[in-house]
Amino acid sequence: MKASIITIGTEILIGQIVDTNSAYLGEKLGEAGVTIVSRFSVSDQKDDMFKALERAQNDADLVILTGGLGPTKDDITKKVLAEYFGRGMYFDAKQYDRLKEFFKRINRPTTKAHEEQCFFPQNTIFMENAMGTAPGMLFHFGDTQFISMPGVPYEMKYIVENHVIPFIEKQRNEFLYHYTIQTAGCGESVLAEKIEDIETNLENHLSIAYLPSLGKVRIRVSGHGTKEEQLQADVDRTVNQIIERVSKYVFGENTDSLQSILGELLKEQQCTIGCAESCTGGLISNLITSVSGSSAYYQGSIISYSNRLKKELLGVKEEILDEYGAVSHQVVTQMVKGCIDKLGTDYAIAVSGIAGPTGGTPEKPVGTIYIGVGNKDDVSVKKLQLTKNRSKNIEYTAYAALNFMRLFIQGKLSDT
Amino acid sequence: MKASIITIGTEILIGQIVDTNSAYLGEKLGEAGVTIVSRFSVSDQKDDMFKALERAQNDADLVILTGGLGPTKDDITKKVLAEYFGRGMYFDAKQYDRLKEFFKRINRPTTKAHEEQCFFPQNTIFMENAMGTAPGMLFHFGDTQFISMPGVPYEMKYIVENHVIPFIEKQRNEFLYHYTIQTAGCGESVLAEKIEDIETNLENHLSIAYLPSLGKVRIRVSGHGTKEEQLQADVDRTVNQIIERVSKYVFGENTDSLQSILGELLKEQQCTIGCAESCTGGLISNLITSVSGSSAYYQGSIISYSNRLKKELLGVKEEILDEYGAVSHQVVTQMVKGCIDKLGTDYAIAVSGIAGPTGGTPEKPVGTIYIGVGNKDDVSVKKLQLTKNRSKNIEYTAYAALNFMRLFIQGKLSDT
Repeated sequence: MKASIITIGTEILIGQIVDTNSAYLGEKLGEAGVTIVSRFSVSDQKDDMFKALERAQNDADLVILTGGLGPTKDDITKKVLAEYFGRGMYFDAKQYDRLKEFFKRINRPTTKAHEEQCFFPQNTIFMENAMGTAPGMLFHFGDTQFISMPGVPYEMKYIVENHVIPFIEKQRNEFLYHYTIQTAGCGESVLAEKIEDIETNLENHLSIAYLPSLGKVRIRVSGHGTKEEQLQADVDRTVNQIIERVSKYVFGENTDSLQSILGELLKEQQCTIGCAESCTGGLISNLITSVSGSSAYYQGSIISYSNRLKKELLGVKEEILDEYGAVSHQVVTQMVKGCIDKLGTDYAIAVSGIAGPTGGTPEKPVGTIYIGVGNKDDVSVKKLQLTKNRSKNIEYTAYAALNFMRLFIQGKLSDT
Repeated sequence: MKASIITIGTEILIGQIVDTNSAYLGEKLGEAGVTIVSRFSVSDQKDDMFKALERAQNDADLVILTGGLGPTKDDITKKVLAEYFGRGMYFDAKQYDRLKEFFKRINRPTTKAHEEQCFFPQNTIFMENAMGTAPGMLFHFGDTQFISMPGVPYEMKYIVENHVIPFIEKQRNEFLYHYTIQTAGCGESVLAEKIEDIETNLENHLSIAYLPSLGKVRIRVSGHGTKEEQLQADVDRTVNQIIERVSKYVFGENTDSLQSILGELLKEQQCTIGCAESCTGGLISNLITSVSGSSAYYQGSIISYSNRLKKELLGVKEEILDEYGAVSHQVVTQMVKGCIDKLGTDYAIAVSGIAGPTGGTPEKPVGTIYIGVGNKDDVSVKKLQLTKNRSKNIEYTAYAALNFMRLFIQGKLSDT
């Protein structure tokens, strides 16, 4: 199946919004076996949208639109689609009831604009949106299928995962099977070199893709074929070969994250954790608590941004701060110990560093970061020297700290 | 001037790379008075590129291409352009000398691939690239101008700033002007209703767009015209009308964020801040510290996820926890006071709530959140009832808390 993506909204064209929806759609549809043949961004003007619709229909079997479904005047996607299909608009009482109920639940009044939001092109097939007010819409027009979704990323993602992917899967006549190996602590090109022979010798119906993100690389093994069981066995065999080769970097599979895997380990051991964060400013704690049920093992954190709070809340000694500076092996060691002591947890993660863009010195340039992990008996410290901008340095450090803690708990620190 | 953007590269279509170049180009060209009328992403296949070139030429006076200029086999932009223009390729000795010098300077040998990189379409006008090996190229073809640049963001940006913008400024005969009003605490549709008459009565050369994100809406006023000063005055007049109407929701302009505005306020008052976070798990602190220089006012935070730590670290009373529960007006009030007391800050933000998906009760369903803000004299508490998923509830709460603190410091809480 060939698909074309149209993102609607002047804010995308003029660069006020970075179009992350298209990247998400490209990846998800690709995984479902759909080839993206073209992508368009257009303003919220009727003529521009018509042109894009014609071009997309010319290119593809499936046209995916995002944006322009809100309640304001610049949201004209539905009207333009109705006109493009040569259909009228109708008021959908069921959708209106749903909307009224939604606003009742959050104690807000329904406005005239909301009523107007319940007009739809004739023959709309709805795709429920549990995250917002505008439903996804499916239209059959000629030989082409059109799916229109809101542009708000989490609403769009809900509809894609719950409706668009199942809709695509029903239509294909070949099985697709993916398995993703989650790795951390090794770059894409080094990983690729380590498994080069496995990739070279792959059978034709199998493929390997590298999906790098900050500090992590996902290795996705994909296969397509008509026999489901055989296909799974082929993919699994390749996955096992790869895991064996790069095992020290593998922390999980498919949708696992470093924070979910760390949580699993702590639950298994019935142990608790806390953090003492400085330059990461709460991001490590935020990642740990992004896992539902994390209250079973996560107790809390002390974010000691100022040196005063490093002393007052974590018991870091003044003379150590004076002698070695806040960004040092010695201080993060004391932060780990102070955290375990003050929070009464089994494990602790501590971080101190210079995220930038200011604050660097010749001895400790921007990007100098110390990470400490430990329990009451033992503390391990690691130094990073990062080169990115402030937000990327902070994000990279947070993931590196989670991975360092995981390796410590698993007793694998000596492997790396 | 109308422009169309083509980004070339299969990695963009399949979502392996988020296309930030287009957003940058949209913003920069828009500022230079160019209207972006369409945007295309295509694979690095000749047929797809031809189709995109035809479409872009049909739409615009200026076609901007990025990508496909590197030394590897999938980099075919120059060959495709030469064929599209019906021109041959020639070897440019001057560019080759430049390349040899470049590699000499970084102590690397020149390879055969680099020599091949010095073939260009006939009649190329060069735009120097001080950041890399592939120069920008300008072509006149029919009534349309084509500019082709490398896809590496910092190389592309160098060429845009130093050559493309000056080139455009020489040619333009119309100005474009945008002004963005940043609001928080009011939904898109209610805002639109409040300023409906302003929007209805707008002159033809002006327009209003709503750009919603979680808990915030940006209102962008745009205008185009031939007289720069008159145009700015027209846009500014509309902006002032809108700000007057919805002033209680306005927190800033253009690229301001809630955390940067909060930081400005604290710096003005020479005051400090800290947080006591529970369900937000560090996100509020993370947002505050995302601002470079935040150490001037941000001291630190206590993340008291467990009730034990609410008592031990913040001094929340056991009997209050027992009587009202951790998610209550009373407990966040004590958290604010405890935070100011333990961290020694002038202001504090505290949050306690049920982010979901589990942990709800009939009296306090998932999405029940209390936010407290205050100083040593006064504490204000607000209850939210959210309806989204865990991560969105946490994110919404963090921004609502920053906004609530801003209003408290500005003495504007009674307005809302």
